[in-house]
Amino acid sequence: MMTAQPRLGFIGLGAMGRPMALNLMKHGYQMGVYARQPQSAAPLIAAGAAVYKTPAELAAACEVVFTVVTASSDFEQVALDEYGIIHGARAGSVVVDMETISPLVVRRVAQALAARGIDMLDAPVSGGPMGAQSASLAIMVGGKPQVFERIKPLLECLGKTIVHMGDHGAGQVTKACNQLALSVTAQGAAEALALARRCGLDPARVHEVLMGGFAASRVLDLFGKRMVERRFGPGIDARFYHKDVAIALELAQDAGLPLPAAAIVKQQLNALMGAGEGTADFSVLIRVLERAAGTQA
Amino acid sequence: MMTAQPRLGFIGLGAMGRPMALNLMKHGYQMGVYARQPQSAAPLIAAGAAVYKTPAELAAACEVVFTVVTASSDFEQVALDEYGIIHGARAGSVVVDMETISPLVVRRVAQALAARGIDMLDAPVSGGPMGAQSASLAIMVGGKPQVFERIKPLLECLGKTIVHMGDHGAGQVTKACNQLALSVTAQGAAEALALARRCGLDPARVHEVLMGGFAASRVLDLFGKRMVERRFGPGIDARFYHKDVAIALELAQDAGLPLPAAAIVKQQLNALMGAGEGTADFSVLIRVLERAAGTQA
Repeated sequence: MMTAQPRLGFIGLGAMGRPMALNLMKHGYQMGVYARQPQSAAPLIAAGAAVYKTPAELAAACEVVFTVVTASSDFEQVALDEYGIIHGARAGSVVVDMETISPLVVRRVAQALAARGIDMLDAPVSGGPMGAQSASLAIMVGGKPQVFERIKPLLECLGKTIVHMGDHGAGQVTKACNQLALSVTAQGAAEALALARRCGLDPARVHEVLMGGFAASRVLDLFGKRMVERRFGPGIDARFYHKDVAIALELAQDAGLPLPAAAIVKQQLNALMGAGEGTADFSVLIRVLERAAGTQA
Repeated sequence: MMTAQPRLGFIGLGAMGRPMALNLMKHGYQMGVYARQPQSAAPLIAAGAAVYKTPAELAAACEVVFTVVTASSDFEQVALDEYGIIHGARAGSVVVDMETISPLVVRRVAQALAARGIDMLDAPVSGGPMGAQSASLAIMVGGKPQVFERIKPLLECLGKTIVHMGDHGAGQVTKACNQLALSVTAQGAAEALALARRCGLDPARVHEVLMGGFAASRVLDLFGKRMVERRFGPGIDARFYHKDVAIALELAQDAGLPLPAAAIVKQQLNALMGAGEGTADFSVLIRVLERAAGTQA
Protein backbone atom coordinates (compact mmCIF):
# COMPACT_ATOMS: atom_id res chain seq x y z
CA MET A 1 0.00 0.00 0.00
CA MET A 2 1.16 3.54 -0.75
CA THR A 3 1.29 5.50 2.48
CA ALA A 4 0.20 8.81 0.88
CA GLN A 5 -0.76 10.11 -2.57
CA PRO A 6 2.58 10.16 -4.37
CA ARG A 7 3.50 12.56 -7.15
CA LEU A 8 3.29 10.67 -10.44
CA GLY A 9 4.97 11.20 -13.80
CA PHE A 10 3.84 10.07 -17.24
CA ILE A 11 5.85 9.84 -20.46
CA GLY A 12 4.12 8.82 -23.70
CA LEU A 13 0.72 10.45 -24.11
CA GLY A 14 -0.63 8.67 -27.20
CA ALA A 15 -3.83 6.69 -27.71
CA MET A 16 -2.97 4.47 -24.72
CA GLY A 17 -0.95 6.74 -22.42
CA ARG A 18 -3.27 9.76 -22.48
CA PRO A 19 -6.41 8.02 -21.09
CA MET A 20 -4.25 6.10 -18.61
CA ALA A 21 -2.69 9.31 -17.24
CA LEU A 22 -6.14 10.92 -17.04
CA ASN A 23 -7.50 7.91 -15.13
CA LEU A 24 -4.72 8.28 -12.54
CA MET A 25 -5.55 12.00 -12.19
CA LYS A 26 -9.23 11.15 -11.63
CA HIS A 27 -8.12 9.30 -8.50
CA GLY A 28 -6.60 12.53 -7.17
CA TYR A 29 -2.95 11.90 -7.94
CA GLN A 30 -0.80 14.91 -8.78
CA MET A 31 0.55 14.40 -12.28
CA GLY A 32 3.63 15.61 -14.11
CA VAL A 33 4.21 14.86 -17.78
CA TYR A 34 6.95 14.94 -20.37
CA ALA A 35 5.88 14.95 -24.03
CA ARG A 36 8.21 14.72 -27.01
CA GLN A 37 5.40 16.29 -29.04
CA PRO A 38 4.18 19.19 -26.83
CA GLN A 39 0.62 19.19 -28.30
CA SER A 40 0.01 15.65 -27.00
CA ALA A 41 0.24 17.03 -23.42
CA ALA A 42 -2.61 19.53 -23.95
CA PRO A 43 -5.48 17.38 -22.51
CA LEU A 44 -3.32 16.59 -19.47
CA ILE A 45 -2.42 20.25 -18.90
CA ALA A 46 -6.12 21.10 -19.18
CA ALA A 47 -6.75 18.56 -16.41
CA GLY A 48 -4.08 20.17 -14.22
CA ALA A 49 -0.87 18.30 -15.01
CA ALA A 50 2.53 20.00 -14.79
CA VAL A 51 4.85 19.81 -17.79
CA TYR A 52 8.58 19.08 -17.55
CA LYS A 53 11.26 19.70 -20.17
CA THR A 54 13.11 16.39 -19.93
CA PRO A 55 12.47 12.90 -18.55
CA ALA A 56 15.22 13.60 -15.99
CA GLU A 57 13.51 16.74 -14.67
CA LEU A 58 10.16 14.95 -14.53
CA ALA A 59 11.67 11.98 -12.70
CA ALA A 60 13.34 14.31 -10.15
CA ALA A 61 9.88 15.56 -9.15
CA CYS A 62 8.08 12.18 -8.93
CA GLU A 63 7.93 9.03 -6.84
CA VAL A 64 6.65 6.90 -9.71
CA VAL A 65 7.20 7.48 -13.45
CA PHE A 66 5.05 5.63 -15.99
CA THR A 67 6.26 5.20 -19.57
CA VAL A 68 4.15 4.21 -22.59
CA VAL A 69 6.46 4.81 -25.55
CA THR A 70 6.22 2.67 -28.69
CA ALA A 71 9.46 0.79 -29.26
CA SER A 72 12.10 -0.86 -27.07
CA SER A 73 14.63 1.71 -28.28
CA ASP A 74 12.29 4.60 -27.35
CA PHE A 75 12.02 3.27 -23.81
CA GLU A 76 15.75 2.74 -23.54
CA GLN A 77 16.34 6.37 -24.63
CA VAL A 78 13.74 7.84 -22.28
CA ALA A 79 15.20 5.81 -19.41
CA LEU A 80 18.96 5.96 -19.97
CA ASP A 81 19.85 8.80 -22.38
CA GLU A 82 21.66 12.00 -21.41
CA TYR A 83 18.37 13.62 -20.26
CA GLY A 84 16.82 10.29 -19.31
CA ILE A 85 14.94 9.26 -16.19
CA ILE A 86 18.06 7.71 -14.65
CA HIS A 87 19.69 11.15 -14.37
CA GLY A 88 16.85 12.62 -12.31
CA ALA A 89 15.08 9.87 -10.44
CA ARG A 90 15.67 9.57 -6.70
CA ALA A 91 16.72 6.32 -5.03
CA GLY A 92 13.58 4.48 -3.99
CA SER A 93 11.48 5.81 -6.86
CA VAL A 94 9.92 3.43 -9.37
CA VAL A 95 9.79 3.36 -13.18
CA VAL A 96 6.75 1.48 -14.53
CA ASP A 97 6.96 0.74 -18.26
CA MET A 98 3.59 -0.25 -19.71
CA GLU A 99 4.44 -0.46 -23.40
CA THR A 100 5.03 -3.83 -25.09
CA ILE A 101 8.80 -4.03 -25.50
CA SER A 102 11.57 -6.59 -25.46
CA PRO A 103 12.05 -8.43 -22.13
CA LEU A 104 15.78 -8.32 -22.85
CA VAL A 105 15.68 -4.50 -22.92
CA VAL A 106 13.61 -4.52 -19.72
CA ARG A 107 16.28 -6.52 -17.92
CA ARG A 108 19.07 -4.29 -19.22
CA VAL A 109 17.32 -1.07 -18.16
CA ALA A 110 16.20 -2.56 -14.81
CA GLN A 111 19.82 -3.42 -14.06
CA ALA A 112 21.06 0.09 -14.93
CA LEU A 113 18.33 1.69 -12.78
CA ALA A 114 18.96 -0.71 -9.89
CA ALA A 115 22.60 0.45 -9.78
CA ARG A 116 21.22 3.88 -8.78
CA GLY A 117 18.68 2.44 -6.33
CA ILE A 118 15.76 3.02 -8.70
CA ASP A 119 13.17 0.24 -8.91
CA MET A 120 11.39 -0.85 -12.05
CA LEU A 121 8.37 -2.84 -13.15
CA ASP A 122 7.52 -4.02 -16.65
CA ALA A 123 3.74 -3.88 -16.88
CA PRO A 124 2.50 -4.29 -20.46
CA VAL A 125 -1.23 -4.23 -20.98
CA SER A 126 -3.91 -5.88 -23.07
CA GLY A 127 -7.20 -4.24 -23.94
CA GLY A 128 -6.36 -1.45 -26.38
CA PRO A 129 -7.46 2.21 -26.26
CA MET A 130 -10.99 1.15 -25.24
CA GLY A 131 -9.61 -0.73 -22.24
CA ALA A 132 -7.35 2.21 -21.40
CA GLN A 133 -10.29 4.63 -21.43
CA SER A 134 -12.54 2.42 -19.32
CA ALA A 135 -9.71 1.46 -16.92
CA SER A 136 -10.36 -2.21 -17.70
CA LEU A 137 -6.94 -3.21 -19.01
CA ALA A 138 -5.31 -6.54 -18.23
CA ILE A 139 -1.86 -5.77 -16.80
CA MET A 140 0.96 -8.35 -16.77
CA VAL A 141 3.69 -7.38 -14.36
CA GLY A 142 7.35 -8.33 -13.92
CA GLY A 143 9.66 -7.16 -11.13
CA LYS A 144 10.24 -7.52 -7.40
CA PRO A 145 7.16 -8.66 -5.44
CA GLN A 146 7.48 -5.85 -2.87
CA VAL A 147 7.66 -3.23 -5.64
CA PHE A 148 4.63 -4.83 -7.29
CA GLU A 149 2.67 -4.61 -4.01
CA ARG A 150 3.67 -0.97 -3.61
CA ILE A 151 2.57 0.00 -7.15
CA LYS A 152 -0.52 -2.23 -7.35
CA PRO A 153 -2.96 0.45 -6.05
CA LEU A 154 -1.87 2.68 -8.93
CA LEU A 155 -2.31 -0.12 -11.48
CA GLU A 156 -5.80 -0.69 -10.08
CA CYS A 157 -6.69 2.80 -11.37
CA LEU A 158 -5.85 1.56 -14.88
CA GLY A 159 -6.97 -2.04 -15.16
CA LYS A 160 -9.09 -4.84 -13.79
CA THR A 161 -6.90 -7.94 -14.11
CA ILE A 162 -3.50 -7.26 -12.57
CA VAL A 163 -1.16 -10.23 -12.30
CA HIS A 164 2.40 -10.47 -11.06
CA MET A 165 4.15 -12.96 -13.37
CA GLY A 166 7.68 -13.04 -11.92
CA ASP A 167 10.94 -11.09 -11.98
CA HIS A 168 12.00 -8.31 -14.40
CA GLY A 169 10.79 -9.09 -17.92
CA ALA A 170 8.18 -11.66 -16.85
CA GLY A 171 5.34 -9.26 -17.68
CA GLN A 172 6.80 -8.74 -21.14
CA VAL A 173 7.36 -12.47 -21.69
CA THR A 174 3.67 -13.03 -20.85
CA LYS A 175 2.62 -10.27 -23.22
CA ALA A 176 4.86 -11.72 -25.95
CA CYS A 177 3.18 -15.13 -25.46
CA ASN A 178 -0.21 -13.43 -25.73
CA GLN A 179 0.68 -11.58 -28.93
CA LEU A 180 2.25 -14.73 -30.39
CA ALA A 181 -0.85 -16.89 -29.74
CA LEU A 182 -3.11 -14.10 -30.98
CA SER A 183 -1.13 -13.43 -34.19
CA VAL A 184 -0.83 -17.10 -35.14
CA THR A 185 -4.57 -17.51 -34.55
CA ALA A 186 -5.21 -14.52 -36.84
CA GLN A 187 -3.03 -16.10 -39.53
CA GLY A 188 -5.06 -19.33 -39.19
CA ALA A 189 -8.27 -17.33 -39.59
CA ALA A 190 -6.84 -15.55 -42.65
CA GLU A 191 -5.79 -18.84 -44.28
CA ALA A 192 -9.16 -20.49 -43.58
CA LEU A 193 -11.19 -17.57 -44.92
CA ALA A 194 -8.93 -17.04 -47.94
CA LEU A 195 -9.26 -20.76 -48.75
CA ALA A 196 -13.05 -20.61 -48.41
CA ARG A 197 -13.26 -17.63 -50.75
CA ARG A 198 -10.79 -19.10 -53.25
CA CYS A 199 -12.88 -22.30 -53.37
CA GLY A 200 -16.00 -20.30 -54.21
CA LEU A 201 -17.74 -20.50 -50.83
CA ASP A 202 -19.34 -17.53 -49.10
CA PRO A 203 -16.75 -16.49 -46.49
CA ALA A 204 -19.47 -14.95 -44.28
CA ARG A 205 -21.26 -18.29 -44.07
CA VAL A 206 -18.02 -20.18 -43.40
CA HIS A 207 -17.13 -17.66 -40.69
CA GLU A 208 -20.52 -18.21 -39.06
CA VAL A 209 -20.13 -22.00 -39.10
CA LEU A 210 -16.57 -21.82 -37.73
CA MET A 211 -17.65 -19.48 -34.93
CA GLY A 212 -20.26 -22.07 -33.94
CA GLY A 213 -17.67 -24.79 -33.46
CA PHE A 214 -14.33 -25.67 -31.95
CA ALA A 215 -12.41 -23.19 -34.14
CA ALA A 216 -14.16 -20.28 -32.39
CA SER A 217 -11.91 -17.59 -30.93
CA ARG A 218 -12.07 -13.91 -30.07
CA VAL A 219 -9.62 -13.32 -32.93
CA LEU A 220 -11.77 -15.18 -35.48
CA ASP A 221 -14.77 -13.28 -34.16
CA LEU A 222 -13.32 -9.76 -34.48
CA PHE A 223 -10.58 -9.92 -37.14
CA GLY A 224 -12.29 -12.78 -39.02
CA LYS A 225 -15.43 -10.69 -39.34
CA ARG A 226 -13.42 -7.76 -40.72
CA MET A 227 -11.69 -10.14 -43.17
CA VAL A 228 -15.12 -11.29 -44.37
CA GLU A 229 -16.50 -7.75 -44.63
CA ARG A 230 -13.18 -6.54 -46.08
CA ARG A 231 -13.03 -3.66 -43.62
CA PHE A 232 -9.29 -3.07 -43.55
CA GLY A 233 -9.51 0.58 -42.46
CA PRO A 234 -8.33 1.99 -39.14
CA GLY A 235 -8.67 -0.44 -36.24
CA ILE A 236 -5.87 -2.18 -34.38
CA ASP A 237 -2.73 -1.28 -36.34
CA ALA A 238 -1.05 -4.24 -38.03
CA ARG A 239 2.35 -2.62 -37.34
CA PHE A 240 1.94 -3.28 -33.60
CA TYR A 241 1.76 -7.03 -34.25
CA HIS A 242 4.78 -6.74 -36.55
CA LYS A 243 6.68 -5.29 -33.60
CA ASP A 244 5.29 -7.74 -31.05
CA VAL A 245 5.88 -10.92 -33.07
CA ALA A 246 9.46 -9.72 -33.55
CA ILE A 247 9.78 -9.50 -29.75
CA ALA A 248 8.52 -13.08 -29.35
CA LEU A 249 10.99 -14.29 -31.99
CA GLU A 250 13.88 -12.42 -30.36
CA LEU A 251 12.93 -14.02 -27.05
CA ALA A 252 12.77 -17.46 -28.66
CA GLN A 253 16.18 -16.95 -30.25
CA ASP A 254 17.57 -16.02 -26.87
CA ALA A 255 15.87 -19.03 -25.23
CA GLY A 256 16.85 -21.50 -27.97
CA LEU A 257 13.32 -22.46 -28.97
CA PRO A 258 11.92 -22.82 -32.50
CA LEU A 259 8.67 -20.94 -33.17
CA PRO A 260 7.91 -21.98 -36.75
CA ALA A 261 4.37 -20.56 -37.01
CA ALA A 262 5.37 -17.24 -35.43
CA ALA A 263 8.26 -17.06 -37.90
CA ILE A 264 5.80 -17.48 -40.78
CA VAL A 265 3.51 -14.78 -39.38
CA LYS A 266 6.51 -12.45 -39.15
CA GLN A 267 7.20 -13.00 -42.85
CA GLN A 268 3.58 -12.26 -43.71
CA LEU A 269 3.77 -9.09 -41.63
CA ASN A 270 7.02 -8.08 -43.34
CA ALA A 271 5.13 -8.30 -46.65
CA LEU A 272 2.23 -6.34 -45.19
CA MET A 273 4.55 -3.58 -44.03
CA GLY A 274 6.18 -3.61 -47.46
CA ALA A 275 2.76 -3.05 -49.02
CA GLY A 276 2.33 0.05 -46.86
CA GLU A 277 -0.50 -1.44 -44.80
CA GLY A 278 1.05 -1.09 -41.34
CA THR A 279 -1.58 1.36 -40.13
CA ALA A 280 -4.50 -0.67 -41.50
CA ASP A 281 -6.37 -3.02 -39.16
CA PHE A 282 -4.56 -6.30 -38.46
CA SER A 283 -7.28 -8.17 -40.42
CA VAL A 284 -5.48 -6.90 -43.55
CA LEU A 285 -3.23 -9.94 -42.98
CA ILE A 286 -5.56 -11.89 -45.30
CA ARG A 287 -4.58 -9.64 -48.21
CA VAL A 288 -0.96 -10.84 -48.08
CA LEU A 289 -2.18 -14.34 -49.01
CA GLU A 290 -4.60 -13.02 -51.60
CA ARG A 291 -2.08 -10.73 -53.24
CA ALA A 292 0.47 -13.54 -53.44
CA ALA A 293 -2.10 -15.65 -55.30
CA GLY A 294 -3.32 -12.77 -57.48
CA THR A 295 -6.82 -12.65 -56.00
CA GLN A 296 -8.62 -9.39 -56.76
CA ALA A 297 -9.80 -7.34 -53.78
CA MET B 1 -39.48 -33.93 -46.36
CA MET B 2 -39.26 -37.72 -46.52
CA THR B 3 -42.66 -39.16 -47.40
CA ALA B 4 -42.22 -42.28 -45.28
CA GLN B 5 -39.60 -43.81 -42.99
CA PRO B 6 -36.96 -44.96 -45.49
CA ARG B 7 -34.72 -47.94 -44.99
CA LEU B 8 -31.29 -46.65 -43.98
CA GLY B 9 -27.82 -48.14 -44.33
CA PHE B 10 -24.71 -47.35 -42.30
CA ILE B 11 -21.08 -48.14 -43.14
CA GLY B 12 -18.35 -47.29 -40.61
CA LEU B 13 -19.33 -48.11 -37.03
CA GLY B 14 -16.47 -46.61 -35.07
CA ALA B 15 -16.46 -44.04 -32.27
CA MET B 16 -18.45 -41.63 -34.45
CA GLY B 17 -20.53 -43.89 -36.70
CA ARG B 18 -21.88 -46.22 -34.01
CA PRO B 19 -23.66 -43.59 -31.88
CA MET B 20 -24.87 -41.85 -35.05
CA ALA B 21 -26.45 -45.06 -36.39
CA LEU B 22 -28.02 -45.75 -33.00
CA ASN B 23 -29.48 -42.22 -32.90
CA LEU B 24 -31.15 -42.80 -36.28
CA MET B 25 -32.59 -46.11 -34.98
CA LYS B 26 -33.98 -44.31 -31.92
CA HIS B 27 -36.12 -42.29 -34.32
CA GLY B 28 -37.67 -45.51 -35.62
CA TYR B 29 -35.73 -45.94 -38.83
CA GLN B 30 -35.03 -49.48 -40.02
CA MET B 31 -31.28 -49.88 -40.18
CA GLY B 32 -28.96 -52.09 -42.21
CA VAL B 33 -25.21 -52.12 -41.65
CA TYR B 34 -22.02 -53.28 -43.29
CA ALA B 35 -18.97 -53.66 -41.08
CA ARG B 36 -15.46 -54.49 -42.27
CA GLN B 37 -14.76 -55.64 -38.71
CA PRO B 38 -17.85 -57.76 -37.82
CA GLN B 39 -17.52 -57.15 -34.04
CA SER B 40 -18.09 -53.43 -34.52
CA ALA B 41 -21.66 -54.20 -35.68
CA ALA B 42 -22.62 -55.99 -32.44
CA PRO B 43 -24.25 -52.99 -30.65
CA LEU B 44 -26.26 -52.25 -33.81
CA ILE B 45 -27.40 -55.87 -34.19
CA ALA B 46 -28.44 -55.85 -30.53
CA ALA B 47 -30.58 -52.80 -31.32
CA GLY B 48 -32.21 -54.61 -34.26
CA ALA B 49 -30.09 -53.72 -37.29
CA ALA B 50 -29.69 -56.14 -40.22
CA VAL B 51 -26.18 -57.03 -41.38
CA TYR B 52 -25.13 -57.17 -45.03
CA LYS B 53 -22.06 -58.82 -46.53
CA THR B 54 -20.98 -56.05 -48.88
CA PRO B 55 -21.63 -52.32 -49.36
CA ALA B 56 -23.36 -53.21 -52.66
CA GLU B 57 -25.83 -55.62 -50.96
CA LEU B 58 -26.52 -53.07 -48.23
CA ALA B 59 -27.09 -50.29 -50.77
CA ALA B 60 -29.50 -52.46 -52.76
CA ALA B 61 -31.74 -52.69 -49.68
CA CYS B 62 -31.66 -48.99 -48.68
CA GLU B 63 -32.88 -45.60 -49.79
CA VAL B 64 -30.11 -43.73 -48.00
CA VAL B 65 -26.61 -45.04 -47.15
CA PHE B 66 -24.46 -43.17 -44.60
CA THR B 67 -20.70 -43.65 -44.61
CA VAL B 68 -18.29 -42.72 -41.81
CA VAL B 69 -14.99 -44.34 -42.86
CA THR B 70 -11.66 -42.78 -41.97
CA ALA B 71 -9.75 -41.85 -45.10
CA SER B 72 -10.61 -40.52 -48.55
CA SER B 73 -9.35 -43.79 -50.04
CA ASP B 74 -11.59 -45.84 -47.69
CA PHE B 75 -14.63 -43.91 -48.85
CA GLU B 76 -13.66 -44.25 -52.49
CA GLN B 77 -13.34 -48.03 -52.03
CA VAL B 78 -16.63 -48.43 -50.17
CA ALA B 79 -18.38 -46.36 -52.83
CA LEU B 80 -16.79 -47.50 -56.11
CA ASP B 81 -14.96 -50.83 -55.64
CA GLU B 82 -16.09 -54.15 -57.08
CA TYR B 83 -18.47 -54.73 -54.13
CA GLY B 84 -19.04 -51.02 -53.59
CA ILE B 85 -22.24 -49.05 -53.08
CA ILE B 86 -22.39 -48.07 -56.75
CA HIS B 87 -22.98 -51.71 -57.78
CA GLY B 88 -26.06 -52.08 -55.57
CA ALA B 89 -27.67 -48.70 -55.05
CA ARG B 90 -30.86 -47.92 -56.91
CA ALA B 91 -31.35 -44.79 -59.01
CA GLY B 92 -32.82 -42.09 -56.76
CA SER B 93 -31.09 -43.36 -53.63
CA VAL B 94 -28.67 -41.12 -51.75
CA VAL B 95 -25.15 -41.66 -50.34
CA VAL B 96 -24.34 -39.37 -47.40
CA ASP B 97 -20.65 -39.33 -46.48
CA MET B 98 -20.07 -37.83 -43.03
CA GLU B 99 -16.34 -38.44 -42.61
CA THR B 100 -13.82 -35.64 -43.19
CA ILE B 101 -12.28 -36.43 -46.57
CA SER B 102 -10.90 -34.65 -49.61
CA PRO B 103 -13.41 -32.44 -51.48
CA LEU B 104 -11.68 -33.55 -54.67
CA VAL B 105 -12.55 -37.20 -53.88
CA VAL B 106 -16.11 -36.14 -53.04
CA ARG B 107 -16.51 -34.56 -56.48
CA ARG B 108 -15.03 -37.60 -58.23
CA VAL B 109 -17.29 -40.08 -56.41
CA ALA B 110 -20.37 -37.84 -56.76
CA GLN B 111 -19.80 -37.74 -60.52
CA ALA B 112 -19.47 -41.54 -60.77
CA LEU B 113 -22.63 -42.06 -58.68
CA ALA B 114 -24.56 -39.41 -60.66
CA ALA B 115 -23.87 -41.36 -63.86
CA ARG B 116 -26.01 -44.16 -62.33
CA GLY B 117 -28.68 -41.78 -61.06
CA ILE B 118 -27.47 -42.02 -57.46
CA ASP B 119 -27.37 -38.77 -55.46
CA MET B 120 -24.73 -37.85 -52.92
CA LEU B 121 -24.11 -35.38 -50.12
CA ASP B 122 -20.86 -34.63 -48.36
CA ALA B 123 -21.79 -33.92 -44.76
CA PRO B 124 -18.73 -33.81 -42.49
CA VAL B 125 -19.35 -33.08 -38.84
CA SER B 126 -17.82 -31.22 -35.95
CA GLY B 127 -18.36 -32.16 -32.31
CA GLY B 128 -16.50 -35.43 -31.79
CA PRO B 129 -17.80 -38.64 -30.19
CA MET B 130 -19.54 -36.61 -27.43
CA GLY B 131 -21.48 -34.65 -30.05
CA ALA B 132 -22.29 -37.86 -31.92
CA GLN B 133 -23.69 -39.47 -28.76
CA SER B 134 -25.78 -36.45 -27.77
CA ALA B 135 -26.95 -35.82 -31.36
CA SER B 136 -25.56 -32.29 -31.13
CA LEU B 137 -23.11 -32.37 -34.05
CA ALA B 138 -22.56 -29.42 -36.38
CA ILE B 139 -23.04 -30.74 -39.91
CA MET B 140 -21.64 -28.94 -42.99
CA VAL B 141 -23.31 -30.14 -46.17
CA GLY B 142 -22.42 -30.02 -49.86
CA GLY B 143 -24.60 -31.25 -52.75
CA LYS B 144 -27.80 -30.39 -54.61
CA PRO B 145 -30.25 -28.21 -52.60
CA GLN B 146 -33.22 -30.55 -53.26
CA VAL B 147 -31.22 -33.57 -52.05
CA PHE B 148 -30.19 -31.60 -48.96
CA GLU B 149 -33.85 -30.79 -48.21
CA ARG B 150 -34.78 -34.46 -48.64
CA ILE B 151 -32.06 -35.69 -46.27
CA LYS B 152 -32.26 -32.86 -43.73
CA PRO B 153 -34.80 -34.62 -41.45
CA LEU B 154 -32.34 -37.52 -41.10
CA LEU B 155 -29.45 -35.16 -40.32
CA GLU B 156 -31.63 -33.55 -37.66
CA CYS B 157 -31.53 -36.89 -35.81
CA LEU B 158 -27.72 -36.49 -35.61
CA GLY B 159 -26.95 -32.82 -35.09
CA LYS B 160 -28.20 -29.42 -34.09
CA THR B 161 -26.53 -27.02 -36.53
CA ILE B 162 -27.10 -28.22 -40.08
CA VAL B 163 -25.97 -25.89 -42.85
CA HIS B 164 -26.00 -26.30 -46.63
CA MET B 165 -22.79 -24.72 -47.89
CA GLY B 166 -23.05 -25.27 -51.65
CA ASP B 167 -22.50 -27.90 -54.34
CA HIS B 168 -20.61 -31.23 -54.00
CA GLY B 169 -17.52 -30.79 -51.84
CA ALA B 170 -18.66 -27.52 -50.23
CA GLY B 171 -19.30 -29.29 -46.91
CA GLN B 172 -15.78 -30.71 -47.01
CA VAL B 173 -14.23 -27.36 -47.98
CA THR B 174 -15.96 -25.80 -44.95
CA LYS B 175 -14.71 -28.60 -42.70
CA ALA B 176 -11.19 -28.20 -44.10
CA CYS B 177 -11.33 -24.46 -43.31
CA ASN B 178 -12.48 -25.33 -39.78
CA GLN B 179 -9.68 -27.84 -39.21
CA LEU B 180 -7.12 -25.46 -40.70
CA ALA B 181 -8.12 -22.55 -38.43
CA LEU B 182 -8.28 -24.87 -35.43
CA SER B 183 -4.90 -26.54 -36.07
CA VAL B 184 -3.05 -23.28 -36.65
CA THR B 185 -4.60 -21.89 -33.47
CA ALA B 186 -3.37 -24.98 -31.60
CA GLN B 187 0.15 -24.44 -32.98
CA GLY B 188 -0.02 -20.83 -31.77
CA ALA B 189 -1.06 -22.04 -28.32
CA ALA B 190 1.77 -24.60 -28.30
CA GLU B 191 4.37 -21.99 -29.28
CA ALA B 192 3.12 -19.49 -26.69
CA LEU B 193 3.08 -22.03 -23.85
CA ALA B 194 6.41 -23.58 -24.84
CA LEU B 195 7.96 -20.10 -24.90
CA ALA B 196 6.48 -19.28 -21.48
CA ARG B 197 7.89 -22.46 -19.99
CA ARG B 198 11.28 -22.08 -21.67
CA CYS B 199 11.53 -18.55 -20.25
CA GLY B 200 10.91 -19.86 -16.74
CA LEU B 201 7.32 -18.67 -16.30
CA ASP B 202 4.54 -20.82 -14.89
CA PRO B 203 2.63 -21.99 -18.01
CA ALA B 204 -0.58 -22.44 -15.96
CA ARG B 205 -0.50 -18.80 -14.94
CA VAL B 206 0.29 -17.62 -18.48
CA HIS B 207 -2.57 -19.79 -19.77
CA GLU B 208 -4.94 -18.18 -17.31
CA VAL B 209 -3.87 -14.65 -18.30
CA LEU B 210 -4.14 -15.44 -22.03
CA MET B 211 -7.61 -16.94 -21.58
CA GLY B 212 -8.69 -13.67 -19.93
CA GLY B 213 -7.69 -11.61 -22.97
CA PHE B 214 -7.91 -11.30 -26.71
CA ALA B 215 -5.91 -14.50 -27.32
CA ALA B 216 -8.74 -16.56 -25.80
CA SER B 217 -10.08 -19.43 -27.91
CA ARG B 218 -11.79 -22.77 -27.42
CA VAL B 219 -8.57 -24.41 -28.63
CA LEU B 220 -6.40 -22.54 -26.10
CA ASP B 221 -8.96 -23.42 -23.44
CA LEU B 222 -9.07 -27.20 -24.07
CA PHE B 223 -5.78 -28.14 -25.74
CA GLY B 224 -3.86 -25.33 -24.02
CA LYS B 225 -4.98 -26.64 -20.64
CA ARG B 226 -3.81 -30.14 -21.55
CA MET B 227 -0.46 -28.71 -22.71
CA VAL B 228 -0.10 -26.99 -19.34
CA GLU B 229 -1.10 -30.09 -17.36
CA ARG B 230 0.93 -32.28 -19.74
CA ARG B 231 -2.01 -34.66 -20.20
CA PHE B 232 -1.11 -36.10 -23.60
CA GLY B 233 -3.05 -39.33 -23.15
CA PRO B 234 -6.13 -40.43 -25.11
CA GLY B 235 -8.31 -37.52 -26.19
CA ILE B 236 -8.81 -36.21 -29.70
CA ASP B 237 -6.30 -38.15 -31.79
CA ALA B 238 -3.53 -36.01 -33.27
CA ARG B 239 -3.56 -38.23 -36.38
CA PHE B 240 -6.97 -36.88 -37.38
CA TYR B 241 -5.53 -33.38 -37.63
CA HIS B 242 -2.59 -34.75 -39.60
CA LYS B 243 -5.11 -36.10 -42.11
CA ASP B 244 -7.31 -32.98 -42.10
CA VAL B 245 -4.50 -30.44 -42.51
CA ALA B 246 -3.27 -32.52 -45.46
CA ILE B 247 -6.75 -32.15 -47.00
CA ALA B 248 -6.65 -28.36 -46.58
CA LEU B 249 -3.19 -28.24 -48.18
CA GLU B 250 -4.29 -30.44 -51.09
CA LEU B 251 -7.26 -28.14 -51.60
CA ALA B 252 -4.99 -25.07 -51.49
CA GLN B 253 -2.64 -26.66 -54.02
CA ASP B 254 -5.60 -27.30 -56.29
CA ALA B 255 -6.89 -23.74 -55.79
CA GLY B 256 -3.49 -22.08 -56.19
CA LEU B 257 -3.35 -20.48 -52.77
CA PRO B 258 -0.42 -20.40 -50.34
CA LEU B 259 -1.18 -21.54 -46.77
CA PRO B 260 2.16 -20.98 -45.04
CA ALA B 261 1.03 -21.54 -41.43
CA ALA B 262 -0.94 -24.67 -42.33
CA ALA B 263 2.16 -25.96 -44.13
CA ILE B 264 4.20 -25.46 -40.95
CA VAL B 265 1.59 -27.25 -38.84
CA LYS B 266 1.70 -30.15 -41.30
CA GLN B 267 5.47 -30.44 -40.79
CA GLN B 268 5.02 -30.42 -37.01
CA LEU B 269 2.38 -33.14 -37.36
CA ASN B 270 4.68 -35.17 -39.62
CA ALA B 271 7.24 -35.07 -36.79
CA LEU B 272 4.57 -36.00 -34.26
CA MET B 273 3.52 -39.01 -36.33
CA GLY B 274 7.19 -39.95 -36.69
CA ALA B 275 7.49 -39.93 -32.90
CA GLY B 276 4.62 -42.43 -32.70
CA GLU B 277 2.25 -39.96 -31.03
CA GLY B 278 -0.59 -40.07 -33.56
CA THR B 279 -3.07 -41.59 -31.12
CA ALA B 280 -2.17 -39.19 -28.31
CA ASP B 281 -4.31 -36.10 -27.76
CA PHE B 282 -3.65 -33.27 -30.24
CA SER B 283 -2.21 -31.18 -27.38
CA VAL B 284 0.93 -33.35 -27.76
CA LEU B 285 1.79 -30.88 -30.58
CA ILE B 286 3.72 -28.86 -27.98
CA ARG B 287 6.17 -31.73 -27.50
CA VAL B 288 7.38 -31.45 -31.11
CA LEU B 289 8.72 -27.97 -30.27
CA GLU B 290 10.09 -29.09 -26.93
CA ARG B 291 11.81 -32.17 -28.31
CA ALA B 292 13.42 -30.12 -31.08
CA ALA B 293 14.88 -27.81 -28.43
CA GLY B 294 15.85 -30.63 -26.08
CA THR B 295 13.43 -29.66 -23.31
CA GLN B 296 12.85 -32.45 -20.81
CA ALA B 297 9.26 -33.65 -20.42
